[in-house]
Amino acid sequence: MQIGIDSFAAAENSDSFNGKKNAQSIEKLINRIVKADQVGLDVFGVGEHHRREFLDSAPHLILSAASAKTKNIILTSAVTVLSAADPVRVFQNYATLDLISNGRAEIIAGRGSFTEAFELFGYDLNDYDQLFEEKLELLIKIQNNDTVNWMGKYRPDINNQTIFPRPVQNPLPIWIGVGGTPQSFIRAGKLGLPLMIAVIGGETHRFKPLVDMYRESGRRAGHSSKKLKVGLHSLGYVAENSKKAVEDYFPGYAKTFTRIGKERGWPPVTLERFKAQNGPLGALMIGSTEEIAEKILRHSEALGGISRFTFQMDNAELSHKQLLKSIELIGEKIRPIIN
Amino acid sequence: MQIGIDSFAAAENSDSFNGKKNAQSIEKLINRIVKADQVGLDVFGVGEHHRREFLDSAPHLILSAASAKTKNIILTSAVTVLSAADPVRVFQNYATLDLISNGRAEIIAGRGSFTEAFELFGYDLNDYDQLFEEKLELLIKIQNNDTVNWMGKYRPDINNQTIFPRPVQNPLPIWIGVGGTPQSFIRAGKLGLPLMIAVIGGETHRFKPLVDMYRESGRRAGHSSKKLKVGLHSLGYVAENSKKAVEDYFPGYAKTFTRIGKERGWPPVTLERFKAQNGPLGALMIGSTEEIAEKILRHSEALGGISRFTFQMDNAELSHKQLLKSIELIGEKIRPIIN
Repeated sequence: MQIGIDSFAAAENSDSFNGKKNAQSIEKLINRIVKADQVGLDVFGVGEHHRREFLDSAPHLILSAASAKTKNIILTSAVTVLSAADPVRVFQNYATLDLISNGRAEIIAGRGSFTEAFELFGYDLNDYDQLFEEKLELLIKIQNNDTVNWMGKYRPDINNQTIFPRPVQNPLPIWIGVGGTPQSFIRAGKLGLPLMIAVIGGETHRFKPLVDMYRESGRRAGHSSKKLKVGLHSLGYVAENSKKAVEDYFPGYAKTFTRIGKERGWPPVTLERFKAQNGPLGALMIGSTEEIAEKILRHSEALGGISRFTFQMDNAELSHKQLLKSIELIGEKIRPIIN
Repeated sequence: MQIGIDSFAAAENSDSFNGKKNAQSIEKLINRIVKADQVGLDVFGVGEHHRREFLDSAPHLILSAASAKTKNIILTSAVTVLSAADPVRVFQNYATLDLISNGRAEIIAGRGSFTEAFELFGYDLNDYDQLFEEKLELLIKIQNNDTVNWMGKYRPDINNQTIFPRPVQNPLPIWIGVGGTPQSFIRAGKLGLPLMIAVIGGETHRFKPLVDMYRESGRRAGHSSKKLKVGLHSLGYVAENSKKAVEDYFPGYAKTFTRIGKERGWPPVTLERFKAQNGPLGALMIGSTEEIAEKILRHSEALGGISRFTFQMDNAELSHKQLLKSIELIGEKIRPIIN
C-alpha cells in the first residue's frame, strides 16, 4: 500500500496578505515534501483552493519546486478542481511536471469541496456535475491521444490538435477524487480510473457500499481489477503516543472545523465528538504509530483492500516541527508495519 | 544594466513524443538556469509555445523547479501569451512562483509571436489586439488591487473577489513584451509598464523611433522616467572568439529560421544574409565576448539607454555544453564590461 501526505498549503499567519510570511509557509511546506521523500513515503499531494487561508491556488507550482528537491516521491494534485479549470492547461501543467520530475506527476481530478472557484472563473454552480463530466472526458481524451478532436459545451472545440508537451509516463496517471456522492463512484468505475476517497468524518467502513458500486461499475465496463484501485484520504496526525497526538491536534482542529462548520452548517467541534470520530471505526487518524497503522489496515479491510492511504495534516494549526516529526514517524514506523 | 538569458525550452530530439528524452532536455535547461544564477546573471526567461519543437507550454513550472535550485536570479516568462490565457490563472501562477522564489518572479506579457495558442484555447485571431488589451487591463487590476471588480468581453466578470495568493513583491512586476507594432509601444508607455523589445532581425537602431514613442507616451501619461524601462531581447551566442561563435551557431540557426521562414514567408537563410544581420548594427549577437559587450552598449546607446539585455540562445540546435559555456562567458566576461 502506498502511504502519503496531503497538504492544503495553509497560510500560517493571520494576515493573508503578508507575502514574506507566506513565502516562509511555502518554504516549510516544500521542506516537508523533502522530508516525506527522505523517509520513504510514496506520495505527496497538494490541494487547490482559492481562499484566504490556503496558499494552493496553483498547486502545480509548489509540486514543481518540490520535484527539484526530491528523488522518488510521487507528486500529485489533491485535488485539481477540474470543473472550473481548462483541461488543456491542466494537462500541460502536469505533463510538464512529469518531464521535470522524470515521471513522478499525477493528477487527482475532483469536482471541488469548496465552491469559490466557480464564481472566480465564471461558472454556474448549477452545472456542478455536468462541468466535471465534460471536462473529465476531455482530460482523458488528451491523456490517451496525442492528437485530439473534441466538441463540448463549456470549452471551445479542439480540431485535430496535439497538446504539448507529452509526458514521460504514458499515460499520465489520472485519479478521481470523490467525497460521498454515489454517482461519482460509479463514474470513476465506468472510466476505469483509480479512485481517491476523502473521508473526513463519520465512520470509514460506511463507504463500503460506495466502493462496491465503484468496483462493480468498473467490472461491468470491462476494466481489470488491477486498474480499479482505491485510495483513502483522511485527516491524520501521529505522535510518539496517543495522548500527545490528541493534545497536539485537537485545539487547531476544533478551531478550523468550527470555522468551516459555520459555512457548511456543521455543529461546533467538541472534544467528545472529536473522540467519537477518532475511535476505532472513526475517520480521524490521530494517535500513536501502532494505533494508526492498525487503523489503516482495519479501514483497508473494511473497504475491500486499498492501494493508497494519505494523511491530511496541515489544517489543524500544527507547527512545522510537529508536522515534520509526524511525517518522520509515518515514514519510519507506520509504512513498514503496513507493507 | 541587467543581463540575462531567454529560452524556449527547445525539444532536442526529433521525436517530440519521446518523454524520456524531453525530460532530459528539461533537466539540462534547468541546469542552465542554475549556471546562469551561479555566474551572476540577473534574469532568466522561459517563453510560451504550444508547438512540437518547444517544451514550454507551461513555463511557470520550469521556472518553479529552477527557483528551488537558484538563489538570486529573476525568473520571468518571456513571454506569457496573455491574449489566450486567463489573467487570474496567470497571476496565481506567478504570485505562487513569487512566494516560492522569495520575490524573484516576473511576468512579461505579450500578444504572442506564434499564433497556435489562439486556436487551441478557442480565440479568434481577428480579436488579436482587443484580447490582449482587455486581458492586460485585468492583469494590472489584479496586480494593483487585493480585491477586484471587473467586467469584460472575453472573460467572466469578477465581483468583489480577492485573487490568492498575494505575492512577496508588491506589486508583482509585469513587463510588456513587444515586436515591432507602434501601438504596442504606445500602450506600454501609457500604462507606465517596463518594455521588453524582441529584435530578432534587421538593424536594432531602427527601433529608436518606437522607443521614443514609448517614452513620450509614458511621459504624457505622467509616468516617471524611472518606471519607463526598456529591455532588449535578441538572438545571441558567444564563444571564445568570433569565428568559433559563428561556426557553432550558424548551421542550427540556418535550419531553424529556414523552417520558420516557410511558415512566415521569410527568404531562406544564407551565410551572406546571416553575416549582414550579425554586422556592427545588426540584431544578431553572435561573436566574442568583447565584440558582443560592445554591441550591447552600442545598441543601448542607439535606443537611448536600456535597462536589460537578454540573449535568446537555444533555438539554434547548440549543444548543452556550448550553451553552458556561452552562459558562463556572458556572466563572467560580458556582464562586468557592461556594468
